[in-house]
Amino acid sequence: MLSKSKVKYIRSLEMKKYRNEYQTFVAEGNKMVSDMMGSFPCELIIAKPSWMATQGNIPAKELLEADDDDLRKASFLKTPQDVLAVFKQPEYRLEDVCPSQSLVLALDGVQDPGNLGTIIRMADWFGIEHIVCSMDTVDVYSPKVVQATMGALCHVQVHYTDLEAYLKQQTAPLYGTFLDGENMYTKQFGGSTGILVMGNEGKGIRPGIEALINEKLYIPNFPEGRETSESLNVAIATAVVCAEFRRRQTYAPDQK
Amino acid sequence: MLSKSKVKYIRSLEMKKYRNEYQTFVAEGNKMVSDMMGSFPCELIIAKPSWMATQGNIPAKELLEADDDDLRKASFLKTPQDVLAVFKQPEYRLEDVCPSQSLVLALDGVQDPGNLGTIIRMADWFGIEHIVCSMDTVDVYSPKVVQATMGALCHVQVHYTDLEAYLKQQTAPLYGTFLDGENMYTKQFGGSTGILVMGNEGKGIRPGIEALINEKLYIPNFPEGRETSESLNVAIATAVVCAEFRRRQTYAPDQK
Repeated sequence: MLSKSKVKYIRSLEMKKYRNEYQTFVAEGNKMVSDMMGSFPCELIIAKPSWMATQGNIPAKELLEADDDDLRKASFLKTPQDVLAVFKQPEYRLEDVCPSQSLVLALDGVQDPGNLGTIIRMADWFGIEHIVCSMDTVDVYSPKVVQATMGALCHVQVHYTDLEAYLKQQTAPLYGTFLDGENMYTKQFGGSTGILVMGNEGKGIRPGIEALINEKLYIPNFPEGRETSESLNVAIATAVVCAEFRRRQTYAPDQK
Repeated sequence: MLSKSKVKYIRSLEMKKYRNEYQTFVAEGNKMVSDMMGSFPCELIIAKPSWMATQGNIPAKELLEADDDDLRKASFLKTPQDVLAVFKQPEYRLEDVCPSQSLVLALDGVQDPGNLGTIIRMADWFGIEHIVCSMDTVDVYSPKVVQATMGALCHVQVHYTDLEAYLKQQTAPLYGTFLDGENMYTKQFGGSTGILVMGNEGKGIRPGIEALINEKLYIPNFPEGRETSESLNVAIATAVVCAEFRRRQTYAPDQK
């Protein structure tokens, strides 16, 4: 049986305050934990004996057998899995981000955990290795974000910084999507390097950052120019722009 | 004060069983309710006096003033809004769907309410007027789906039917995305008409339906061919394909 203090420790990691204090985060489920194990030091594993039996040497500091009841108490999921693990948060260096040599994503105040998780998963697919977030963007180590990344967290480095100050120092092109931007299918632009900035779900990109963006893009609706009061979800918009950047880079290198 | 039976009725609409029985659904928030009002008959409005005061003639069968406490009891949201409304579900006809004349979306067992809501919102942006769902796709009138559509439910008709039987009758091209499909950026295809079929979050498209799909597409990752165990979220994949269909149709009509 899992001790009360252990359950309390794990449950506390739902809150950013405690995640920061311990510098750890939780991941759940066989695929997720197996993926993460190769990328982050593992502090603790809580798992059913049946899961343990399928593993070889498990590189975790602490290993605890648990039953359904234990896992239900510890889990953040509606349907607890056979394994839950606590990993050490990685320490990434902002100096490793090179927007002059690759495409980088920046998030200005994205709030929804599902959106951030989906964006990280999409970034992995489109070979984006770094995401730079404003301090008020939802914490990547929130259990909901971690689960929504489906393991992509192992391949994408997520940084937090004063985004406006960071972007001010950049010389690479800064892209963003705006309703009054230029049609991204007809506009000439590079797109294989630079920073694509995406904004908050309700408020978009804050004015101080908008002022820095030198390549304002627009994702045309269809039929083009049709009047609509609607917009696209931020994760959807990010994906559509990233897909177009990668398409040009790979299949239409002359369309710049 | 809102009567207990009224609160009970509204709360019951969280369940598909009761939504089917009453043929109604709930929408919340000023923009949402205002948008919906133009499209669906309104059965009931529960709102703060301050909201009522900003409205002209409100075309609802029943209109009830409420305070914060009433709205908290009735609401499905974490942060209840000033207005909650119950609308009549529309009756759409599958005969109105014309895949030989326009691009239609089909969903095979999409389960997550957020995904369906986001897909409907994206469909609206890209001018897709009909979505045909398998019977086991999450119900579009679930409060979570309705809220995630951000009003796009007014412009996109969502149908439920035996999807496999429906697709069997079609002569228009049937598209789907598969890991072993053809690169959608280099493949020749129409894409301005036909049906794009997207599958369940975990299991993808069921075998019986996969067998019917004559245009198997692949969204290339980047750098192309890089090995990855990951995939894209279904709403993201749907959006990236729809954006590419619309781009070709509008900006590259020769690329067929």
